[in-house]
Amino acid sequence: MNRFWSKRIQNIVPYTPGEQPKDRQFIKLNTNECPYSPSPKVIEAINRAAGDSLRLYPDPECVELRAAIAKREGLDINRVFCGNGSDEILAFAFQAFFDPDREVVFPKITYSFYPVYTDFFGLKRREVPMNPDFSDPIDLLCGNNGGVVLANPNAPTGIAVGLGTVEKLLNANPDVVVIVDEAYIDFGADSAVSLIGRYPNLLVVQTTSKSRALAGLRVGWAMGDAGLIDGLRCVRDSINSYTVDRLAQAGAAAAIRDEDYFQSIRRRVMDTRSWTEKSLKEKSFTVLNSQANFVFASHPNHSGKELLDGLRERGILVRWWDKPEIRNWLRISIGTDEDMEALVQALGELI
Amino acid sequence: MNRFWSKRIQNIVPYTPGEQPKDRQFIKLNTNECPYSPSPKVIEAINRAAGDSLRLYPDPECVELRAAIAKREGLDINRVFCGNGSDEILAFAFQAFFDPDREVVFPKITYSFYPVYTDFFGLKRREVPMNPDFSDPIDLLCGNNGGVVLANPNAPTGIAVGLGTVEKLLNANPDVVVIVDEAYIDFGADSAVSLIGRYPNLLVVQTTSKSRALAGLRVGWAMGDAGLIDGLRCVRDSINSYTVDRLAQAGAAAAIRDEDYFQSIRRRVMDTRSWTEKSLKEKSFTVLNSQANFVFASHPNHSGKELLDGLRERGILVRWWDKPEIRNWLRISIGTDEDMEALVQALGELI
Repeated sequence: MNRFWSKRIQNIVPYTPGEQPKDRQFIKLNTNECPYSPSPKVIEAINRAAGDSLRLYPDPECVELRAAIAKREGLDINRVFCGNGSDEILAFAFQAFFDPDREVVFPKITYSFYPVYTDFFGLKRREVPMNPDFSDPIDLLCGNNGGVVLANPNAPTGIAVGLGTVEKLLNANPDVVVIVDEAYIDFGADSAVSLIGRYPNLLVVQTTSKSRALAGLRVGWAMGDAGLIDGLRCVRDSINSYTVDRLAQAGAAAAIRDEDYFQSIRRRVMDTRSWTEKSLKEKSFTVLNSQANFVFASHPNHSGKELLDGLRERGILVRWWDKPEIRNWLRISIGTDEDMEALVQALGELI
Repeated sequence: MNRFWSKRIQNIVPYTPGEQPKDRQFIKLNTNECPYSPSPKVIEAINRAAGDSLRLYPDPECVELRAAIAKREGLDINRVFCGNGSDEILAFAFQAFFDPDREVVFPKITYSFYPVYTDFFGLKRREVPMNPDFSDPIDLLCGNNGGVVLANPNAPTGIAVGLGTVEKLLNANPDVVVIVDEAYIDFGADSAVSLIGRYPNLLVVQTTSKSRALAGLRVGWAMGDAGLIDGLRCVRDSINSYTVDRLAQAGAAAAIRDEDYFQSIRRRVMDTRSWTEKSLKEKSFTVLNSQANFVFASHPNHSGKELLDGLRERGILVRWWDKPEIRNWLRISIGTDEDMEALVQALGELI
């Protein structure tokens, strides 16, 4: 705190990103990054874009990148909006579509940035308790709210809902925007993009950070009715007109276009996830059914914090939250086969 | 408008960035970009950073880049904050340091994003009329306000104030933050960075977009007391933890380190500005005394709009605002010598 701080920030507890250690080589299973390199075509596109044209502002409307996304998804380009990572898109959406007088609702256990957004933007929220099996409490997200946010698959549980469930949410909340945060959609769940034409209240948010191996490039996008896209544009142009730099636009467009590479690495991640789930269960872990690039696991005889610390001593970082409902759980990103073998071996030593 | 838009955005008039035409080759003197390429060392640094590590999140604290800035400016690193362009930094600062109950003050003719910020963040503002010669109305920015924003040099006038004037503002407003927006500082004016140790209410904002020829990379930074920097960090971590991607961090750090290249291109721009001022005055233009990489000029017999349109027909873009005080003025970015010769010739044909 400082005497010059605004009232707005005096009582904020900001989001805490996963640790990015620089002092030591860890097996990094704490921030859901992809263990494989980005497509070689991405690197080529960046190298081509790194030249004289960097002296010029980027295209504020990201037309080339939006066209690549629109083409892949079979959407009109005016249904696509790009930003500096899906977090920025979410922050824009909370400002564009939610008002202070009505509660924004989302599951109690979900991406921990959502309550930060509601606090920071002066919105009310209702965090809905999870079902006992950690699945999403869909009925409690239906009606009587000022907006819905659903991560699908959810984080940190990894549990996904089907499109029928998403449609139920959209039909039950016709007068408010339903944000479906699909950061992890490419690892086994069905995207709600196919519903966009039928639901003007649907906003789907995706990112290059996970399945395109580009967390370091900061590109996310929203897809939805053109009126919603215009709302995001209005927020952006009230804050920072040029949010996606030239290199990020070029690299992300190349990533979207390289479908073969994308398919190959997402399959590898899913295969490794199956092996990891099986191996952890053999060691008596409970592992939720994940459709994401991480698993959420707990052991009957060892606390989450104990395993977190023990893994760290063995050079492996995973993620743990000091919240009552999930204190005994670890979120473990899916790395390479070798990473996960090291993880399973280390956990074997700890239990 | 759309029925799902929040009240916050329903009445907002967003910022309009300068045109970025794609259909035709123009001589682009409308967005104050640098006419020279970025340093070759920037391109090398970007090519080095474009590899496997893009799969990992960037350093959210931008330590390497902040260290480069801190070293150049003789500051402690905890007095430096980096973001996705200086517009993002300004947007963060308005949220971090200004409250809705007191007016933020700035000159009436200045960077047109400031009133957008006050509107969008629900702040009151007082836009202070310019002195008759378009110099900044400093006395009217002293006291009785909730924060001060001064672009130095000012845009679109190009007029700079000296450090004594900045100190006057800081001393007259000891209980509020004074933001000095130095986007154009490197073309002849004195930076307020040297005052930071003595004024805890001073926040200086700079960018790589102009004097480092990197508008396409989107990197800006703030310098000030560590308590102010912490406030910016609090805002960032409530919106988007990773605002500067790996390539932008690497490229901007290389640009800051290449002092020789920086000095050579800023001198070329200043030399070309001198020639342009002289040439325009020879054609009976009034040209304000600019310390920026643009000039602000008007002609006694021709309206600003008439000259804007005539230049556009001749393949030259400049910037014009439909505001009563400056309707007869054009803001003309300084391009290469050849660009400016073409401009002067085209204006000669038009008058």
